[in-house]
Amino acid sequence: MAIKLELHKMSLMPKGFKCASTNCGLKEKENDLSLIFSKTVANAAGVFTKNQFPGAPIILGREIIKKKKLQAVVVNSKISNVGTGQQGIDNAKKTATYASNELNIDKDLVMISSTGVIGKQLPIELLEQGIKGISSNWSTDPIVAAKGIMTTDTYPKAISFPVGNATVTIIAKGSGMVEPNMATMLVYILTDAAIDADLLDEMLRNSVNLSFNMLSIDTDTSTSDTCLILANGISGDVDTAQFAELLTAGCIKMTKMLAMDGEGATKLLLAEIENAHSAQDAKYIAKSIINSPLIKTMAYGADPNIGRILMALGKCFDCSIIPEKLVIFINDKLVYKDLNISPDFDENEVRKLLGSKEVKIKVNLNIKSSNAIAYGCDLTEGYIKENAAYYSS
Amino acid sequence: MAIKLELHKMSLMPKGFKCASTNCGLKEKENDLSLIFSKTVANAAGVFTKNQFPGAPIILGREIIKKKKLQAVVVNSKISNVGTGQQGIDNAKKTATYASNELNIDKDLVMISSTGVIGKQLPIELLEQGIKGISSNWSTDPIVAAKGIMTTDTYPKAISFPVGNATVTIIAKGSGMVEPNMATMLVYILTDAAIDADLLDEMLRNSVNLSFNMLSIDTDTSTSDTCLILANGISGDVDTAQFAELLTAGCIKMTKMLAMDGEGATKLLLAEIENAHSAQDAKYIAKSIINSPLIKTMAYGADPNIGRILMALGKCFDCSIIPEKLVIFINDKLVYKDLNISPDFDENEVRKLLGSKEVKIKVNLNIKSSNAIAYGCDLTEGYIKENAAYYSS
Repeated sequence: MAIKLELHKMSLMPKGFKCASTNCGLKEKENDLSLIFSKTVANAAGVFTKNQFPGAPIILGREIIKKKKLQAVVVNSKISNVGTGQQGIDNAKKTATYASNELNIDKDLVMISSTGVIGKQLPIELLEQGIKGISSNWSTDPIVAAKGIMTTDTYPKAISFPVGNATVTIIAKGSGMVEPNMATMLVYILTDAAIDADLLDEMLRNSVNLSFNMLSIDTDTSTSDTCLILANGISGDVDTAQFAELLTAGCIKMTKMLAMDGEGATKLLLAEIENAHSAQDAKYIAKSIINSPLIKTMAYGADPNIGRILMALGKCFDCSIIPEKLVIFINDKLVYKDLNISPDFDENEVRKLLGSKEVKIKVNLNIKSSNAIAYGCDLTEGYIKENAAYYSS
Repeated sequence: MAIKLELHKMSLMPKGFKCASTNCGLKEKENDLSLIFSKTVANAAGVFTKNQFPGAPIILGREIIKKKKLQAVVVNSKISNVGTGQQGIDNAKKTATYASNELNIDKDLVMISSTGVIGKQLPIELLEQGIKGISSNWSTDPIVAAKGIMTTDTYPKAISFPVGNATVTIIAKGSGMVEPNMATMLVYILTDAAIDADLLDEMLRNSVNLSFNMLSIDTDTSTSDTCLILANGISGDVDTAQFAELLTAGCIKMTKMLAMDGEGATKLLLAEIENAHSAQDAKYIAKSIINSPLIKTMAYGADPNIGRILMALGKCFDCSIIPEKLVIFINDKLVYKDLNISPDFDENEVRKLLGSKEVKIKVNLNIKSSNAIAYGCDLTEGYIKENAAYYSS
């Protein structure tokens, strides 16, 4: 029985967590530095990018998370500290040290993240100054932390929901260079539930595989993807099955928010694959649809060029596809069956469906029983504009 | 020793070949139907799309090419005859029959191609009328044939060059839905050299793998990709090693023309990979660079955001990459080495290089000795514009 995800209407932090955010001078005006803190040491798990040029914070982060304990996360935006060699590693370590001094905790309990331009050194003295005294401005609104980690995101993203007596908060950023693999963008999940670190790790990986790992905004896998979960246990035990289910639902909710706020995006695109030969096929095909620039532009223009869906399926060379069995729907309207465009295909009706804020392409392969859903967005002039001058702006 | 490709300045057809083109009413004004004819039966070879939803002409074409003989090719643009079921197959057969009647040759010697919107039936009576009498307007200018096969191409593409006493002509269209695999777009290669059909097939596959199969405009693999070669032998034997080398050079030349005329493109993008662990790695990495929307938009905006090259390399999860050994050049200017952006990296200089009509990203992996070059173009607002309303326009 599915448990319904009910979001808190106001942004809430789980008990014992607080955050702060400031402008330390990396950006001109907006906040570029955030700190998240738990008053007690939390069990922690994390997944990181599979990109072969991980940023310095990822290289360090993989070591830090081995102890399965965290008490703080410090994040800067604007510069990602990737492609920065030994100096980059040193700067990431310094950042953790500044935060541990400010919070008076062990530096091994501090996770660091950086997001932004690749290949530039962090002006470390700005981070030092920014972190100093930041804890005099604690907030219990996660949106405050979300603000300092934004790059091209158009709004800060945080959601909270209850699980039993506990609260879960998800803080995230996405927008561009987003096709995470084994992890995603920057996502921080906080809870006051008491959960064993190994179970936390297992639940996190499962939820990420069904949510953030099924998101693609532009096929480009970031060098800084990080998804962390911290459980400080202050609110005690929860039903872990329920927690796992709601964690996944919450991650999917945030995945949709990230997709919808993809660079230049005007709408959410979903590819729902049913009855594929294998889970791998279902995922691959869902990603092929969500990543096709011709489907993304079709959705943008609400152009009923649905033959492009056949193209995107057909280019999955190694997947089992039986054209005779294939059935395709757009927003639940049948458009293709029996090797032909559906006889009652009405261009204007399909144009209207494609004009919605949410476009769902459902493909029933009718082969075996594996399903997958991928999340993405349309491709617009806005994406080009943002990315033709990202470095310089 | 490399033989230099020297293009004929004027468009020439090999001896015994002629072509014609007309508007049969699929498009409003422009030509939408082309016929290519050899006065004698030619040895022939062909490669076709690997897309799992091939168009009706591909399904038939795979059968026709088995006999290794062709005398004519009939091509329509605007409607691709894909996703059209049995009626589509019947229409493709009818098209071949109309052409065989017009030319008074066996219908098994006629190859058909269609390109354009997917999922619409061909108005077959228009093709019948268009083919009837088309041979009263023969031309020996391949540009005439190239005109009738265009979709979003901005100009008709044909090149000719000599091999010994013989001539080779390549007629092609590309523009969008272009990441061919085992074949490409529509390409017709004609020659009056005498070459055995099996050797022709071998040479074609080799050339295609080094040229059209290394082209990607938008990662989307067409359902209609076809590359044919016809050799009618009228000019007799040639040095086949020389022919093979020049065929590859000619195909690469045409690949660049197609890349440069990608939908909305303003410049040619080349990814040259050196000293990869394997040929497969070299190809995969070259394609990763050429397909990255963030690299494509960087090239478009001439934004020196070269960290994105690291990202595109790093997301080749299964390729051998040793960051310490990696060296990167843009238009032969060193930009990355020893885990760092090059110390003499000059933003304005790199901006200027990225502003060229041809941007070459060279990556030396320094692992083993496999090389590859991929061809593509930048990603611009023009691509979005063309593809947000392709069906409707």
